[in-house]
Amino acid sequence: MKHGFRPLFYPRSVAIVGASSNPGYSVGGQPLRSLATFGFKGAVHPVNPKYEVLNDLPCYPAVGKVPRPCDLALVAVAASRVPGVIRECGAAGIPFAVILSSGFREIGEAGATLQQQVAEAARQSGVRVIGPNCQGIMNLATRMFAGFGVAFQRPDLQSGPVAMVTQSGGFGYSLVTRASDVGIGFNYVVSIGNECDVSTLDLLEYLLELDEVEVLTAYIEGIKDGRRLLAIGERALALRKPILVWKVGNSDSGRRASASHTANLTSDATVYRAAFRQGGFIEIGEVHELIDFSRGFLSRKLPRGRNVTVITSSGGAGVLLADRCDEAGFRLPPPADATRGRLREFMPEFASVANPVDVTAELSGDPAALNRAVAAFLDDPATDQVIVYRGNVTGTIGRTWATGLGAVAAGSDKPILVSLLQEQSRDALQVFNEHRISWFPTPGRAAAAAAALMKFSDKLAHHARRAGRHVPRQEIGWGNASGTLGEFRSKRVLAAYGIRGVRETLHSPAELAALQESPLRFPLAVKIESPDIPHKSEAGAVRVGIGDLDASKKAAEEVLESVRRHAPAARIDGIILQEMAAGTEVIVGVVNDAYFGPVIVLGLGGIFAEVLGDVTHRCAPVDLHTARTMIRELKGHKVLLGARGRPEADLEALADTVSRLSWLAWDHADRIAEIDVNPLFVGPAGGGAVAADALIVLGKPALDAGGGSR
Amino acid sequence: MKHGFRPLFYPRSVAIVGASSNPGYSVGGQPLRSLATFGFKGAVHPVNPKYEVLNDLPCYPAVGKVPRPCDLALVAVAASRVPGVIRECGAAGIPFAVILSSGFREIGEAGATLQQQVAEAARQSGVRVIGPNCQGIMNLATRMFAGFGVAFQRPDLQSGPVAMVTQSGGFGYSLVTRASDVGIGFNYVVSIGNECDVSTLDLLEYLLELDEVEVLTAYIEGIKDGRRLLAIGERALALRKPILVWKVGNSDSGRRASASHTANLTSDATVYRAAFRQGGFIEIGEVHELIDFSRGFLSRKLPRGRNVTVITSSGGAGVLLADRCDEAGFRLPPPADATRGRLREFMPEFASVANPVDVTAELSGDPAALNRAVAAFLDDPATDQVIVYRGNVTGTIGRTWATGLGAVAAGSDKPILVSLLQEQSRDALQVFNEHRISWFPTPGRAAAAAAALMKFSDKLAHHARRAGRHVPRQEIGWGNASGTLGEFRSKRVLAAYGIRGVRETLHSPAELAALQESPLRFPLAVKIESPDIPHKSEAGAVRVGIGDLDASKKAAEEVLESVRRHAPAARIDGIILQEMAAGTEVIVGVVNDAYFGPVIVLGLGGIFAEVLGDVTHRCAPVDLHTARTMIRELKGHKVLLGARGRPEADLEALADTVSRLSWLAWDHADRIAEIDVNPLFVGPAGGGAVAADALIVLGKPALDAGGGSR
Repeated sequence: MKHGFRPLFYPRSVAIVGASSNPGYSVGGQPLRSLATFGFKGAVHPVNPKYEVLNDLPCYPAVGKVPRPCDLALVAVAASRVPGVIRECGAAGIPFAVILSSGFREIGEAGATLQQQVAEAARQSGVRVIGPNCQGIMNLATRMFAGFGVAFQRPDLQSGPVAMVTQSGGFGYSLVTRASDVGIGFNYVVSIGNECDVSTLDLLEYLLELDEVEVLTAYIEGIKDGRRLLAIGERALALRKPILVWKVGNSDSGRRASASHTANLTSDATVYRAAFRQGGFIEIGEVHELIDFSRGFLSRKLPRGRNVTVITSSGGAGVLLADRCDEAGFRLPPPADATRGRLREFMPEFASVANPVDVTAELSGDPAALNRAVAAFLDDPATDQVIVYRGNVTGTIGRTWATGLGAVAAGSDKPILVSLLQEQSRDALQVFNEHRISWFPTPGRAAAAAAALMKFSDKLAHHARRAGRHVPRQEIGWGNASGTLGEFRSKRVLAAYGIRGVRETLHSPAELAALQESPLRFPLAVKIESPDIPHKSEAGAVRVGIGDLDASKKAAEEVLESVRRHAPAARIDGIILQEMAAGTEVIVGVVNDAYFGPVIVLGLGGIFAEVLGDVTHRCAPVDLHTARTMIRELKGHKVLLGARGRPEADLEALADTVSRLSWLAWDHADRIAEIDVNPLFVGPAGGGAVAADALIVLGKPALDAGGGSR
Repeated sequence: MKHGFRPLFYPRSVAIVGASSNPGYSVGGQPLRSLATFGFKGAVHPVNPKYEVLNDLPCYPAVGKVPRPCDLALVAVAASRVPGVIRECGAAGIPFAVILSSGFREIGEAGATLQQQVAEAARQSGVRVIGPNCQGIMNLATRMFAGFGVAFQRPDLQSGPVAMVTQSGGFGYSLVTRASDVGIGFNYVVSIGNECDVSTLDLLEYLLELDEVEVLTAYIEGIKDGRRLLAIGERALALRKPILVWKVGNSDSGRRASASHTANLTSDATVYRAAFRQGGFIEIGEVHELIDFSRGFLSRKLPRGRNVTVITSSGGAGVLLADRCDEAGFRLPPPADATRGRLREFMPEFASVANPVDVTAELSGDPAALNRAVAAFLDDPATDQVIVYRGNVTGTIGRTWATGLGAVAAGSDKPILVSLLQEQSRDALQVFNEHRISWFPTPGRAAAAAAALMKFSDKLAHHARRAGRHVPRQEIGWGNASGTLGEFRSKRVLAAYGIRGVRETLHSPAELAALQESPLRFPLAVKIESPDIPHKSEAGAVRVGIGDLDASKKAAEEVLESVRRHAPAARIDGIILQEMAAGTEVIVGVVNDAYFGPVIVLGLGGIFAEVLGDVTHRCAPVDLHTARTMIRELKGHKVLLGARGRPEADLEALADTVSRLSWLAWDHADRIAEIDVNPLFVGPAGGGAVAADALIVLGKPALDAGGGSR
């Protein structure tokens, strides 16, 4: 099916089932008008037993009567009639149906039952269905407006290399019209509705592969197959094609109720964010971001580094751009000597040749000064992107300037982002749109687009450096184990994947009482090993800082006594003697998400993770390079670099642990529900990392507590 | 001068010195055309010896020949001639001059000298000068376009109750044109230029008092008199009038190089931010924020609490709005029973009556359903603001709906924010503009405006609850002290303002050696008292955890020896014996800013402040209520609330300390340059707070290291 959606977007003819002559607010009337009059070249067949002719077209009493071949049926009949219509489509050999009708899952139980019947009809008849409850699809390249709503009354919508799949028809199509109004054209747009058959992911996967789709966009409330989303993100990187994704529905996803700290640090929103971070996705959250980032990517140039040059015709905007670039993590290096020399040729003596550079046209007396400056900086090895601000350029002057800048841009593979006053510069903008020079109505938006290009460039570089698997799959003798594993046993599982724990021994109470000599170095911790006590401190099942063997024996008696009081039913698998560890405290863990599979969580220990929520997530498996990136993403990562007089921590050992843990969770995703390694002590550089406590929970993947939004 | 700017904005006549007949790019030609033809009712007198008539107006050879009375001269002659022209204005009795000419401070030293001459001419002649190097001023209420640039060629610019002072003429006027294009009108706009005489603050102060100015806006690169800025912010709160301020030039203000931690945690940008936080300022950083927040405030309604109701005609936008409201700290409470009943009257059975509520017009069959829902929620006590999303409403339907909503809004004092598709709804928008119902082109921008209204409402509430001075002024015997004070001495200064230190005693080495009994409880810390060793640990001048008197004497010898090695020239004022303290570590300090006076810094100790930069600032004095707010602003403030099993800290004692420190710095701002209290140990509730270490630096206010941007 991967390449099977072509007839949906390029139908030879379209049947409109439930067509009506009323183009006003009628779901069956609007597409009849738009398909017949907006330039679509295929045949249009209205279907409605009430008419013989509709809008001068022959009207058919049933979909079975429509002339063949027909590739697409738009269905706009009452909900109850939809299952029958789908079967008729199947019988008539129509491969695709887009169901515009509403009255299905969105209205409650009765509608959900009806939707189930539609899905069955689709499966049995072999018809692939978009919807129900959607606004329809567009192929603007062929002027096919197959749906209803504001956008379907806009024959002026521009065609271009952006595609969209949207889970909100109304909002999605409003994005399309707005983007079109400022020169961003779409080719394929799909309002996916209730997804009773064809899914958002089916279409993203398909559209991503099309050469004519240069930027893919998606408005998503929730998806079911997280692993497939990850695969699509990976493929986007391989194709060097960005997916701009707007994910909504993050506010009510409650945190999961769970035994592990890791699970409490993970929400639906964080898992999506992790998935987006891993693939070729760029998250957006405003209309102008969709427009600006699309425009940026359509210029088909990416920066190779973080050096930005700001060239303005107005000092005020230069200050603002310098602020924004600074906030975005860019550097504004001064021009190289050669560049400086070229600038001096046309800039007045008193003007400061710097970055930002203010090429005031008035002062220089050279109308092409701005473009000459751009050309000079593009040749400067210390420039990776150029942001140009020009405040006021109308009419012929604007056109001449823009054409000149187009010529300069054509000679370089570095991005040029132009900020100007949209309202004043229509002539220039038209030239920019033709030359695919990206422009923005405010300096801030230009800087944000530059940051989006940099982000995608970083993703591509990261993708190229990814390492393979460095931990072989290990068999674990799970036996009949279920629920929570004790600490000692959990650490043996970690050890199988090469994750070191502190030195420790497990003893029966009698064995411990009879010990003549400590197998370990003092000071020790003494703990209970029990699958029933995940939180040992609260049950009084831990003693630390034990200085000799007698004290160990006494501590063992105390913890046993405490457990007998606090958790009389708990199974006791023994007493752990454990050497004390030191280093920087880190928490690393796994939550096996029902949709995305194992999700790895990394945070600094204690206050950082739990009070400040300073954690980062990735979907497993996580290679070493990605693990290193995760470490850098922590706000408190300076602590690991040796803040306040501490030595730098062993970052490589930490990255190695994160990666190994992810492979363990990945290889045994059918058994492991959660893992907590808390704390992991990371020693100074070269000193390694050891798990001081660990907890593995077996069972089914953890479903989110709320569960509403997806 | 407070009310003396009226002739500037309402001149009976305007002279244009250096007028020209070329309206194209000429600085002297543009205002001649716009003043003569855009509707300005005053007389216009071109001055240029080359002409007798210009654009059908009598042209005068010199400003002295212009008919009286003349209130304003626009000066557009060569820079070198400007000082002479200002004197001529003075001689001719013209009270105001706006200097459009450039070639002054902005081009370097020669220009700066010339500018100095202009300032002298102004002072001597009594002419108040705007500029030089500015784009001019506008009074759109009287259609006075007195300047040059894009905006001065736009006779269609709308008049309205927003005023602006901008330090960037080009960028500021671009904001005016953009806002006007979407229905936000300005009355007074001033491009302030190089500020050789009249300053940004002069005009903000003046405009703030005008009844016809409902929203004041400012684009600022830097100002000199920070205390006056604070006073303006305070006055704005008293007048319940917001100042939207866009501050740029934050990126290159380097951190100050200084002895105290506090100073290292303070930059120019943080000081401005503190000042803005304290007064009636709302910070903005994008064009659409200026537009949206102005529109929000022009509706003249403020929310009383954080409960928002979201009403949509499209489910997709509801999910998005819920996200944005959640991020902004709003609650979306469900409707009360009475509201639910009213909604049930017109909403279909299956529709969910909740918040967000989706009043799909199609389903209800009631075109006024949306407005009925708005009316019901406005009466609900659990609603403080209503955000309405409507996707598609054109022509007459739009006008009818908007008019209905206007009637609903008129009956309530709660804000209504409407999000719709700008491009599609011009009829509705016009009605909204007339009724001052605020509208926004995207859901995200509506939510951001709601947050801005809430912020200002919070500021007003805070202002009303401010407490007075609770610490009397204390005299401090500074004597000849200068530079750094030793720790013991610093703490005596703190103690004078009621800030407790740990129990400690100061001894000469001989005295200490002879001690028979400890005056304090062990364990103790032993430290050097020296004005020359601000960082004692680095000089080996501290020993901690000393258990008895002999050990104290030994420690004293050690630190003396260490200091002799590390800082042989240091003056030694004695040895401090000090009890050890415990509690939550906090850093609190003062930097005496050259422009803003004493700035108070608060942060959690150690990693929080120094690694994460989790600190907050205010300008002194800080009352108790503000100090409590500062504590809540810390990202790590949960640590003080008792995270991870700790007891809640004594927040009142901390707030008290912050306030007292601010009064100390305020009362003695002529002496104190910096204060560090680091750490301050805050005990459990009721346990108080004690300074464990302290450092006071005397001297002149700390100038910023970079100093470029202001």
